[in-house]
Amino acid sequence: MCSPEIVRLAHDGAPRPSRRAMFGLAALAALAAVAPAPALAAPRPGAVVDLTHTLTPQLPVWPGNPPIAMVPVAWHASGGFDQLALGYWEHTGTHLDAPAHRIPGGATTEALAVEDLVAPLVVLDISAKAAGDADAVVTVADIDSWRGQHGEIPERAFVAMYSGWEHRIAEPSTFLGLDAQGRPHAPGFSGEAAHHLVAQCGIVGAGVDTLSLDCGVDPDFGAHTALLGAGRYGVEMLANLATVPPVGARIVIGAPKHAGGTGGPCRVLALT
Amino acid sequence: MCSPEIVRLAHDGAPRPSRRAMFGLAALAALAAVAPAPALAAPRPGAVVDLTHTLTPQLPVWPGNPPIAMVPVAWHASGGFDQLALGYWEHTGTHLDAPAHRIPGGATTEALAVEDLVAPLVVLDISAKAAGDADAVVTVADIDSWRGQHGEIPERAFVAMYSGWEHRIAEPSTFLGLDAQGRPHAPGFSGEAAHHLVAQCGIVGAGVDTLSLDCGVDPDFGAHTALLGAGRYGVEMLANLATVPPVGARIVIGAPKHAGGTGGPCRVLALT
Repeated sequence: MCSPEIVRLAHDGAPRPSRRAMFGLAALAALAAVAPAPALAAPRPGAVVDLTHTLTPQLPVWPGNPPIAMVPVAWHASGGFDQLALGYWEHTGTHLDAPAHRIPGGATTEALAVEDLVAPLVVLDISAKAAGDADAVVTVADIDSWRGQHGEIPERAFVAMYSGWEHRIAEPSTFLGLDAQGRPHAPGFSGEAAHHLVAQCGIVGAGVDTLSLDCGVDPDFGAHTALLGAGRYGVEMLANLATVPPVGARIVIGAPKHAGGTGGPCRVLALT
Repeated sequence: MCSPEIVRLAHDGAPRPSRRAMFGLAALAALAAVAPAPALAAPRPGAVVDLTHTLTPQLPVWPGNPPIAMVPVAWHASGGFDQLALGYWEHTGTHLDAPAHRIPGGATTEALAVEDLVAPLVVLDISAKAAGDADAVVTVADIDSWRGQHGEIPERAFVAMYSGWEHRIAEPSTFLGLDAQGRPHAPGFSGEAAHHLVAQCGIVGAGVDTLSLDCGVDPDFGAHTALLGAGRYGVEMLANLATVPPVGARIVIGAPKHAGGTGGPCRVLALT
């Protein structure tokens, strides 16, 4: 999340805007293929699992947001070193939402507590109900069901929703689920569930394998408000959540640390 | 490292070029103060230590490279969410050098083995000799001396040079150490030491608290070539190396994962 255009769309259903190139630079079209869907084999203990999508200009972005632009600025042939210039909007690819994204005066990227970037990882799998309902949400009942199977949610955990949407990443239209009015339809946390995770479970952050912590049709952005309003952070567009256990791994959020930022692309690793 | 200008400077001593604004955007001048020098207290076991400088337009960059540009593109008042657009050259701030930075056809950012991003951390402290010699380098003798004190370097380690330069970060002129000809003077690894760490110690990567793996006066970029040429990665401009033990911590490199990249800003954490 989130450009002003999509906020407006969610409220008033205005027509879907076209993409704009950022900084006037055309994105390089063929740098790499979109990552394939992950295998479902469980990782061995001690393995490192990459929960990050490869960031390309082909990755889905919110309507109104531009794709990443990458432009060569140095070359082996002329100086011995290659280098690119990068341009993007912060909420692109697998990325962090800092509290300041939603909350005026909220913590910016460099102000997050570093201890909160390493946490027990909990995965809530709602893929079965999401398969038939693009507006499915994680509910408090889902959290209670998880508890019934796996026990209490660890203290200071990071809780990730696995909806199965990560496997749609190569198809932006189904990943975003835009309807005829340009409104997105994709799973997320209900505002009530997000509040419950903060207030009752003491989580440090929450993540999704979709592009928004909220389900697409929530006009109030209840999950964003509950999480970021409580000083917690979010991570959107996670990958490979099907390959990590429901509990037992540790997540490390390689959050961006630019001053005054509202979020940004981050490398997210699970240590099993 | 490294713009074509600095490569040329190191070879022929041409005049120092002026900075250029990237993408035609002026950097926002006062987003945040430069981070202060770290305290020297040892971290408690189980702590997370941030080895990352806060990325601001005031951070030192190589001559010829622009500072990061950050421009608001979304606002709470008009849509409920703040967001910035970011523009920078990859080798800015605390950042990764992928093999492709130096080596034609070398691995790009998204192709690094994820297992190599989590490693035992070894810190080689050459701050005593560097205090009086801006061209000081880590030598094979320094590595042997470390072994004499701490034992063998762990397998698949990440080896960081602590020169003390991290404390100069707020003073770009002394951090870069540019002389009258525009040549940088700052510590690094000797090419021989870098080769030794790869061939004899089997490291996964190496880092420095300066802006280059090489000392500023090496015209052959021997450390870059030895490390990146062997498929290893580098991390430049590390912070807080004085606060982690010489051995015993684990480092996690939150490396960027954009397709085809030669490196980029990364969040680097030490788990003690």
